[in-house]
Amino acid sequence: MAVAAASVAEICAGAKRASRELGMLGSAVKDRALQRVALALQERSEEILHANREDLQAGREAGLSDALIDRLTLDRRRLEAIADGVRRVAALPDPVGEVIDGFRAPNGLDVRKVRVPLGVVAVVYEARPNVTIDAAALCLKSGNAIVLRGSSAAMHSNAVLARVAAEAATQEGIPEGALSLVAGGGREELAELATQSGVVDLIIPRGGEGLKQALRGVATVPVIYAASGNCHVYVDASADLGSAQEIVVNAKVQRPGVCNAAETLLVHEQVAPSFLPRVLHALHDAGVKLHGDARARELVADLPMRAATDEDWATEYLALELAVGVVSSVDQAITHINRFGSGHSEAIVTSDTTSARRFQLAVDAACVYVNASTRFTDGAEFGMGAEIGISTQKLHARGPIGLRELCTTKYLVEGSGHVRL
Amino acid sequence: MAVAAASVAEICAGAKRASRELGMLGSAVKDRALQRVALALQERSEEILHANREDLQAGREAGLSDALIDRLTLDRRRLEAIADGVRRVAALPDPVGEVIDGFRAPNGLDVRKVRVPLGVVAVVYEARPNVTIDAAALCLKSGNAIVLRGSSAAMHSNAVLARVAAEAATQEGIPEGALSLVAGGGREELAELATQSGVVDLIIPRGGEGLKQALRGVATVPVIYAASGNCHVYVDASADLGSAQEIVVNAKVQRPGVCNAAETLLVHEQVAPSFLPRVLHALHDAGVKLHGDARARELVADLPMRAATDEDWATEYLALELAVGVVSSVDQAITHINRFGSGHSEAIVTSDTTSARRFQLAVDAACVYVNASTRFTDGAEFGMGAEIGISTQKLHARGPIGLRELCTTKYLVEGSGHVRL
Repeated sequence: MAVAAASVAEICAGAKRASRELGMLGSAVKDRALQRVALALQERSEEILHANREDLQAGREAGLSDALIDRLTLDRRRLEAIADGVRRVAALPDPVGEVIDGFRAPNGLDVRKVRVPLGVVAVVYEARPNVTIDAAALCLKSGNAIVLRGSSAAMHSNAVLARVAAEAATQEGIPEGALSLVAGGGREELAELATQSGVVDLIIPRGGEGLKQALRGVATVPVIYAASGNCHVYVDASADLGSAQEIVVNAKVQRPGVCNAAETLLVHEQVAPSFLPRVLHALHDAGVKLHGDARARELVADLPMRAATDEDWATEYLALELAVGVVSSVDQAITHINRFGSGHSEAIVTSDTTSARRFQLAVDAACVYVNASTRFTDGAEFGMGAEIGISTQKLHARGPIGLRELCTTKYLVEGSGHVRL
Repeated sequence: MAVAAASVAEICAGAKRASRELGMLGSAVKDRALQRVALALQERSEEILHANREDLQAGREAGLSDALIDRLTLDRRRLEAIADGVRRVAALPDPVGEVIDGFRAPNGLDVRKVRVPLGVVAVVYEARPNVTIDAAALCLKSGNAIVLRGSSAAMHSNAVLARVAAEAATQEGIPEGALSLVAGGGREELAELATQSGVVDLIIPRGGEGLKQALRGVATVPVIYAASGNCHVYVDASADLGSAQEIVVNAKVQRPGVCNAAETLLVHEQVAPSFLPRVLHALHDAGVKLHGDARARELVADLPMRAATDEDWATEYLALELAVGVVSSVDQAITHINRFGSGHSEAIVTSDTTSARRFQLAVDAACVYVNASTRFTDGAEFGMGAEIGISTQKLHARGPIGLRELCTTKYLVEGSGHVRL
């Protein structure tokens, strides 16, 4: 484990060397190493919590908000949850070596397309120290060396977590250098990490827009930008309105600060007069601030609702706030969603198979739901065990980024002296 | 079909609109359209060859080399070959709608992961006018709208080919705007095309380093850079030397100007004394210029061979030129290849299963061959029918880029009122 002493370039070069061996290890070695990491997190909890207290004290002195202090805080319960997460990753099927296609080509060659690790994955993240371990577990399981770069606010916690994990993993045969933390949390280290082309194979930022923007300017290494989610629920003319209300309230209220929460409600004009008053009162009672188009405001005149602007339609509130519109058809809903959505998670509530199929075919998004809440877009809910983020880009990975998405492929081709004519 | 009149941004916006409808068309419509395109290329050959003659005349006046003039030239035979290519693409299975994963999640939701078109694909290319049709056929078949930007040297040929294809396709129900050519061949149009984020979903450059470099500087749209191929053949201690010689000569000589040709030969020290003299003489007789390490030059002192430098090991000659080295083990060959290779196509010739497996596991490349020539890395040879290039990047597509690689995926999720707890 390299901290402070080594430069970013040296750490990455060490990770590359380690990745060559790590990528060929069988599942048994990797799973034993992950079990040992989980155990070490509990056995060495005193050491970890001590370092965390240093960060917390510095954070309080620097005047961090209560919310940030909470995100930064570790305790015995949280450490156990982190260790359990590592054990869950260990229990997942190994993506490496999976044959995803195979055939005898017309020329007689036997071709297999197999999943292999990317090599070196860099994860840059903010505040939460648990990401150190979550990301490390996913990368090691998928045969990738990982280079972590956390924020300076969590530097003591991250350093000890990375050290504990690296030491435990190494004891079980994971090569040295496979798990490293870049010491500095500054923009300079970020830029150096993001330009290690040919050494770092992928960077995944986990953090706010500032972090993504900083990467966009400098990165020469491929980046998968985690998603922003401007998600919609569309309630069709044929919807079961009871179910629709449950879905809308769930999608907006259950956890408003996450990317798969709904930000806009669209309702078919045929059911708007009966549906909108009840659902909007329920949302209002749950503390949701509403912005509506002309028809919505007319139908529910007894609630405070300012006019929704194009900016509202385009905004990911990440809060108890919702834009509401009335549409004349499923196609109008689709057009609205494809114009304003961010391609994350979109839902239709309907009992009409034609509307359901049309919506699923035409909406351009990572996940398109029929009669379910958008909140389900999540690696664990999809049975992928864990995720390192959710991608709204179309290349490489779209949707939750799990173990398979941390891999690339390789064609293995076998002949018996074949030459091309 | 939009030429000259519309701006790059307008053309791309039109392509985006067309892509919404095109992406939902069934295979039958797309295949009929491709058949009609093939027919039109033959029926309207006079018009096409006339335009081509304009380009040829301008090219001769501008002093283009004979090789470039040849690449630019169309005739009836070449047009038929292009039309046959379109028919082959029509005959391929449709990648759109293919269910590549599916399961009932632990929460009871039914999840399908299906292949869907990317949306709008831009292809920027040099000289050869056949790319206009090859790329258009692959994009239409995979449900993508295409925006083409060729070089100014082929502007008349490209314009008429694109017009003929677009008209024929539209007659069979392909939406207007699905196939467009950007009029100008300058850097300005390239920059405008490469910055259509959110409209153009992917750019594929087909051309030399200059073109790629120009894109690298400006592109905000995702790019898949077609490969450079610094490919190796390693002849193991246990190799059948007759077969090894055939493979080496094939990989180097059969078509030296392409990315899957071999650029370096590595030979195990145990067979180097018997193998190197015969294979290097054969290569020399075929006109191959040789550069060797100290041991190779000592073993074959009767041939002209200058010392191979690190630059030789790193060079893609794309010509009858080869670097030759002697190694002490399969692991030394692997280390050399992972250090100097470009991750394209690598081959081992061996009769030893341990060496074969070690080489396939440890070499980090898109295609790893056992007892076959590197020259087979090709969409058609892999039974993919056709390709739009070969990727050496690890994200999204690695190896030949065919119909599937021109797609992304979408999760379709069905519930019965599911909400998240």
